[in-house]
Amino acid sequence: MKDFKGKILFVTGGASGAGLGQAKVFGREGMKVCIADVRQDALDNAVNELIAFGIKKEDILAIKVDLTNREEYKAAADKVEETFGGPPHLLIQTAGVNSFGPIEASTFDDFDWVMGVCLNHVVNGLLIFVPRMIKAYAHKTEFWVATTSSMGAFMAGSGTGPYSAAKAAVNNLMYSYAEALRPYGAGATVLCPGNINSNIGNAEKYRPANLKNTGYHVSEGTMAHLRSVHATGIDPVELAEILKEGIENGRIIVLPDHTPENRAAQLRGLNATIEDYTLTAAERDAKNAERMAAMRKMMEEAAKKGENPPMMWKVPEGAEEFGHARHDLDWIDQARK
Amino acid sequence: MKDFKGKILFVTGGASGAGLGQAKVFGREGMKVCIADVRQDALDNAVNELIAFGIKKEDILAIKVDLTNREEYKAAADKVEETFGGPPHLLIQTAGVNSFGPIEASTFDDFDWVMGVCLNHVVNGLLIFVPRMIKAYAHKTEFWVATTSSMGAFMAGSGTGPYSAAKAAVNNLMYSYAEALRPYGAGATVLCPGNINSNIGNAEKYRPANLKNTGYHVSEGTMAHLRSVHATGIDPVELAEILKEGIENGRIIVLPDHTPENRAAQLRGLNATIEDYTLTAAERDAKNAERMAAMRKMMEEAAKKGENPPMMWKVPEGAEEFGHARHDLDWIDQARK
Repeated sequence: MKDFKGKILFVTGGASGAGLGQAKVFGREGMKVCIADVRQDALDNAVNELIAFGIKKEDILAIKVDLTNREEYKAAADKVEETFGGPPHLLIQTAGVNSFGPIEASTFDDFDWVMGVCLNHVVNGLLIFVPRMIKAYAHKTEFWVATTSSMGAFMAGSGTGPYSAAKAAVNNLMYSYAEALRPYGAGATVLCPGNINSNIGNAEKYRPANLKNTGYHVSEGTMAHLRSVHATGIDPVELAEILKEGIENGRIIVLPDHTPENRAAQLRGLNATIEDYTLTAAERDAKNAERMAAMRKMMEEAAKKGENPPMMWKVPEGAEEFGHARHDLDWIDQARK
Repeated sequence: MKDFKGKILFVTGGASGAGLGQAKVFGREGMKVCIADVRQDALDNAVNELIAFGIKKEDILAIKVDLTNREEYKAAADKVEETFGGPPHLLIQTAGVNSFGPIEASTFDDFDWVMGVCLNHVVNGLLIFVPRMIKAYAHKTEFWVATTSSMGAFMAGSGTGPYSAAKAAVNNLMYSYAEALRPYGAGATVLCPGNINSNIGNAEKYRPANLKNTGYHVSEGTMAHLRSVHATGIDPVELAEILKEGIENGRIIVLPDHTPENRAAQLRGLNATIEDYTLTAAERDAKNAERMAAMRKMMEEAAKKGENPPMMWKVPEGAEEFGHARHDLDWIDQARK
């Protein structure tokens, strides 16, 4: 999809972070911008930010909606058509939440909440919008579906179990839609970033009242640690520009590396680990020992040059390390987890 | 996990197909065998088959249970403990259903049914059993969780959308559990077969009454076509033996190729397609044209030698091709789909 001007964008999680970045970047291309989010205060703020970014007020539609509720989501889709005269040409589903802790500590509430937002809302949007988009635009006007997934889709997530599983499902879904939509003159793209400078670190504050029974240790302190990690992530507008290049050129997977030539190699590296899962435990252990030795060497050399080791996320003053189990779970190896 | 004798197996979908094959193979190793399934008639038949296979009647427990219902699943877990004195040492979740059709024709019922059985039942079992297994066996006795997924987990599924997405999620979950359980002296294995000689072709007959609104064209004829395809699949006992080797040697992914050395290469081939998704559409098209040319050449050479082209699934006399959209869906490109 190359031409965005005058067309309609619908972006979930559009009130902040990656979603707001996408609203800005595609709004700047001249799209009419619908942002859908569960947070009214963030929506109000986002509208002001979009206007300050140069997008006309009449081209912005902010919809408060629980995207995991299919009836609410359908009503939001109707609202878009009423307001702008048709379904979106570009659907970007970016709303996401996460919660960190040992997968074996997970509760049904942890799975229901994280998979509800990260996977089910994506299914909802695809099933609600794609038939409308095909009917309105197939073979006439370019249209596209995109989703913000995660590099977590390509990796084990023993500390982010429901999130990684949801993202793996979402990636696979988007591959299927990419293949399916091509005969209609359309396509699909899944954005797989690592760390984004977003508000996802505050997600626990929006966990619904009926899904509060987490198996993870969550506190104001763990959220502060998470926020400090996300603050080092990629800028949402920069990320949205990378997504735009991917959509323009029909990429199905977009990894956040700025140099497109590096991306297949990056994915190749992640997949190599998965391919090793076909090996016996003894064979994997031998390979991992080699990798650890190489990593230690790299870190020692970096230390000699006075560089910091990569990816060391310090717990800020007054914060608490995220990713642990709730302390009262008696089956958890609390010393290690 | 090397030692199965006297330990407890719980296998979902155990009343037929892949699950029954697993019950037979691990039962023959001396395990107490619990088979859980939603089909009472199939359970009765399976008990007889297991006895005929040489497994003692008192070592068999058949439980009729809707595995997507968490309360029922919990009750089944309690029953195992009451009957055999502890939770399973080996949990194999194999129950699965599938329905074929263009992903853009899918309804919420299609997703809810297929993902409910293929993904949610797996989550249910892991959340219900793993804490019990850790409490009972960690650092004392070997225990293991396994799931029957699919090679579909590694591929786009534009004609098997909900199924492939569910399987991708399940694979990722199992990688997470493999990593998470190792400190407890346990592990996880995900079996990823292609075609199995099972009864999954009849799955539509067991679709719950409240999820009947499919977007796919389903008939007795399409089920007959599907059955003819599955009849050419791997034998369930043979497949279970391949899984056993994987569990014994701590493999996380088990592909059905008999030669373990071939499997990483097989997965490498599947992943190469996914890595190409990072390319532009034009770059992918060029690569695909090369692949198609090579494939055509291979098929021409096979034809010259009088061999049948591989993977041609003919529609049997009186059957109807599966995989199409429901004919009344007006957004579907019916000529191509």
